[in-house]
Amino acid sequence: MESIAFVKGHGTRNDFVLLPDPDGQRELTAELAIALCDRRSGIGADGVLRVVRTAADPAAAAMTEAATWFMDYRNADGSLAETCGNGLRVFARYLVDSHLAQPGELSIATRGGVVTVWLEAAGDVTVDMGAPQPSAAATATVDGEVFEGVAVSMGNPHLVCVTDVDVASLDLTTMPDVDVLAFPDGVNVEFVNIVGDRHAQMRVYERGSGETQSCGSGACAVVAALAARAALDGDHSGEYIVDLPGGRLCIRFDDAGHLLLRGPAVLVADGTFRVDQS
Amino acid sequence: MESIAFVKGHGTRNDFVLLPDPDGQRELTAELAIALCDRRSGIGADGVLRVVRTAADPAAAAMTEAATWFMDYRNADGSLAETCGNGLRVFARYLVDSHLAQPGELSIATRGGVVTVWLEAAGDVTVDMGAPQPSAAATATVDGEVFEGVAVSMGNPHLVCVTDVDVASLDLTTMPDVDVLAFPDGVNVEFVNIVGDRHAQMRVYERGSGETQSCGSGACAVVAALAARAALDGDHSGEYIVDLPGGRLCIRFDDAGHLLLRGPAVLVADGTFRVDQS
Repeated sequence: MESIAFVKGHGTRNDFVLLPDPDGQRELTAELAIALCDRRSGIGADGVLRVVRTAADPAAAAMTEAATWFMDYRNADGSLAETCGNGLRVFARYLVDSHLAQPGELSIATRGGVVTVWLEAAGDVTVDMGAPQPSAAATATVDGEVFEGVAVSMGNPHLVCVTDVDVASLDLTTMPDVDVLAFPDGVNVEFVNIVGDRHAQMRVYERGSGETQSCGSGACAVVAALAARAALDGDHSGEYIVDLPGGRLCIRFDDAGHLLLRGPAVLVADGTFRVDQS
Repeated sequence: MESIAFVKGHGTRNDFVLLPDPDGQRELTAELAIALCDRRSGIGADGVLRVVRTAADPAAAAMTEAATWFMDYRNADGSLAETCGNGLRVFARYLVDSHLAQPGELSIATRGGVVTVWLEAAGDVTVDMGAPQPSAAATATVDGEVFEGVAVSMGNPHLVCVTDVDVASLDLTTMPDVDVLAFPDGVNVEFVNIVGDRHAQMRVYERGSGETQSCGSGACAVVAALAARAALDGDHSGEYIVDLPGGRLCIRFDDAGHLLLRGPAVLVADGTFRVDQS
């Protein structure tokens, strides 16, 4: 029986199976990702992060100069994903805890390019999520109620709806209605209550996944939308706090206008998965 | 950091974390069960099966003569459970695969007493689920539609509703309405289509858990209800097939009127859980 070493971790309850494969001896197929992520017959996770040296994987070979490690990522449904803010924190935590990298600044190769990450020796991890691109206004409809929002791209598409309606009361068991012509590739929809100065509470419905407990790029899109509002008042410096069902994320702009996402990353287990058994 | 060795397995997608603790050196607290079963910050499972010698646990000491191993079981919510048909299969498979027991007939101590199990060297496991006790008629209501059923006790309470309505079409996201006076301790509700001779398809709503992919005692309750119908025609010998969302279970009566539940048991992973990290 073939078996695979794995590590399990999560960032604000967005959870991942990590597959240590430094020398690129294993292919992360869609079938393997689906089997590993199955929450009853597998390990169970939102996605799989294969940990491989850039030099050992053709998909990352062009990034060898800029980064030592490549985060080869697939979602639980087997689809490839370019990157993932919560996943990058867990990936970086694994590298440091396994003595494959030092705490401090770290460059990680992803299918979306090289991403900069900062690690405290023990504690939070910060990820450079790039510059947000706010665009047009749009609406989302839940149970017949219409919410005004603004589209924000973080590389992936978001629709941020700031509302006075208690977001905890919304029924997000099905996808909110949105203008499909405005979002031809689908969209992640965030519902946001402002609960204090630079402090928001949100829920998110992710395209393809349904409601999730945390979405790093979604939290950044929310901050971009809040900052655009604050810009009317002149000041959007300082750190924003975004509370999600899975925990707290802290986000601020750097001088280049990029959003820096800070949050926890925890490794909870390691072991061996029996590939042919499930 | 404290760490705990674990094994993960499932029977028809009813999944369990096993904690090998032969010498009874660890207490399976409600807190530990909840932490292990959390599907995002833990390993994730429907319940925890601690594997301990009867002689090493005061709760099983009275069963030392009859059984070598005690299945100390807690549900994902931390509550104690007497037994579990799917869990017993996985527990027995672990004992044999770990060379702690031989294939063939095996007695396992549970909080509900000693249970007999039969193991093929590789393949299905059969569990003696005891004698069913059918009782009064009752109804369950889903979305305003009333389903006639019959109450069956398998130690735990069931309400079996055989219907011509396609069970796949039912909305079981919330508990069906039942007569709470008839079921003071709650009830598991089974919806059943007869799809052939001694062949049923079912879905189950478990009290406290919601809809699950498999319920061994529920499948037995269904067979007891079908046999009571067949008894009108004189014959209820032979094996019944019950298809659940999580897979197939095969059930027959023995000469003493007990129901023997046969089905798969699969071990998918083993490893180490970091107790203080999650």
